[in-house]
Amino acid sequence: MSAIYQRVAFVGLGLIASSMAHAIRRAGLAGEITGTARSAETRQVALEIGLVDAVFDTAAEAVVGADLVVLCVPVGAMAGIAQEIAPYLEPGVTVTDVGSVKQAVIAAVGPHLPEHVHFIPGHPLAGTEHSGPRAGFAELFDNRWCILTPLDGGDAPALERLVSFWQGIGAHVDLMDPPHHDLVLAVTSHTPHLIAYTMVGVADDLRRVTDSEVIKYSAAGFRDFTRIAASDPTMWRDVFLTNKEATLEVLGRFTEELFALQRAIRTGDGVLLHDYFSRTRAIRRGIIEAGQDTAAPDFGRAKR
Amino acid sequence: MSAIYQRVAFVGLGLIASSMAHAIRRAGLAGEITGTARSAETRQVALEIGLVDAVFDTAAEAVVGADLVVLCVPVGAMAGIAQEIAPYLEPGVTVTDVGSVKQAVIAAVGPHLPEHVHFIPGHPLAGTEHSGPRAGFAELFDNRWCILTPLDGGDAPALERLVSFWQGIGAHVDLMDPPHHDLVLAVTSHTPHLIAYTMVGVADDLRRVTDSEVIKYSAAGFRDFTRIAASDPTMWRDVFLTNKEATLEVLGRFTEELFALQRAIRTGDGVLLHDYFSRTRAIRRGIIEAGQDTAAPDFGRAKR
Repeated sequence: MSAIYQRVAFVGLGLIASSMAHAIRRAGLAGEITGTARSAETRQVALEIGLVDAVFDTAAEAVVGADLVVLCVPVGAMAGIAQEIAPYLEPGVTVTDVGSVKQAVIAAVGPHLPEHVHFIPGHPLAGTEHSGPRAGFAELFDNRWCILTPLDGGDAPALERLVSFWQGIGAHVDLMDPPHHDLVLAVTSHTPHLIAYTMVGVADDLRRVTDSEVIKYSAAGFRDFTRIAASDPTMWRDVFLTNKEATLEVLGRFTEELFALQRAIRTGDGVLLHDYFSRTRAIRRGIIEAGQDTAAPDFGRAKR
Repeated sequence: MSAIYQRVAFVGLGLIASSMAHAIRRAGLAGEITGTARSAETRQVALEIGLVDAVFDTAAEAVVGADLVVLCVPVGAMAGIAQEIAPYLEPGVTVTDVGSVKQAVIAAVGPHLPEHVHFIPGHPLAGTEHSGPRAGFAELFDNRWCILTPLDGGDAPALERLVSFWQGIGAHVDLMDPPHHDLVLAVTSHTPHLIAYTMVGVADDLRRVTDSEVIKYSAAGFRDFTRIAASDPTMWRDVFLTNKEATLEVLGRFTEELFALQRAIRTGDGVLLHDYFSRTRAIRRGIIEAGQDTAAPDFGRAKR
């Protein structure tokens, strides 16, 4: 594949940026990759392991000459970065991001960018529990979804180019309007994460069960929660603070349903429980059929 | 390894029994394996694929001549089975089970068994989302925990023999008193399952997000919940009905903590959220160090 952008600049060099960099090199999608990160150590590692061709101390320097800028910082840091880089952006550059929330990013970034910039917010749905420039790998986005939420009146060729870029990285691309994105993610990601964090916190608090017991017997179901709950705390704090409305709506529904099941346990309503538990199997089958997971019988196995 | 039991009889031939049968053959732990199941189809499959050397239409017939009887039926079915087999149990036979709850099984099974039987309740902490006689595989218990909850005044050599048997199957064995087992499992397994079922139910209910969206974007966190929530509905109904007290206690703690986090989101308390999310990482590290999972960066990947 020939290069889609001449110079890609990453602001932030964590798991997502480093995985993108590996995937860009794998497919030859960029002439050159530059980057910056807040921490000097991260910048040095990124250069050492060859993630970037050049590293800069500031975001302003990193974006000079770039025709694609990818904002890979926590949602709460986006506004400051947008303000800093705005005067240094080339005419016709595409600016995108990888934030887990889209309305808040648009509100934070949009007002700072000059008119000659194509701002196309994005969100690749992929991740691991690991962070930092060494955590990246080229396959992270293979066959995963990347959702772009283009703004009204945006440039069609610029969008087409970014779509090809993400496809070259290995992802499937979907377009969505920003409020719907935030609701869909509140259901499929944000609320599940909050619940997982809560359950792990409860296990840690319950004095009569020791930490070592929780750890030893985690394979019985709890372990999948700890994997989710090990994600980056700063990123997740920002997600909940900036996708407040949708998360609180889904949480409200969740507690209503949980109370109904809790009541069924208390009153011994086995029919309600059995019906509820049967219904959820259909969704699981749908996920396997959609190729988003395998049916291999290795749940709970170390070989994963 | 030489045979530890001459004849092992399984009552119920689902995922756990079939995996045990494979592991028993792998290590040569039994002279002979017999079994029974409620469904004629299951009995036929078990015979066809060589899980058992002989299959019987009733539990009463299956246990005749056995020196180990393993009850692998849902907790709610244990009392009926115990009553049925009691007159056919040989003197000195060990009766064990694989139920996820221990106090309720002891209450259901214990009163029916004659004095010349060694009743040693057990619970192997392993499973997949699949059910039935074809779902079993020999490695299911390798390096997983099996908790035995021996009764006061039980026979020490019989216990030692059963411990060796589970070790031969590949598991680590722990001994615990029954009420503590039920609390530990309420934390590490039962409550997480209920929460996962609830979250999947909410996703299915929320009209403004379509099923196909939930399925497509499940890799963002939700998918791990669906895997948990795909487990056998009958088994889980019985778990919640029979471990009511401990589950409700842990659920109470869970909703308290969830409300505190919900309030922090509503009021924008980023410090509380960040502190909470940081604390849960330590538990995750403990699980990896304990060898109950790997740190491989493939969370959310199809290759698992």
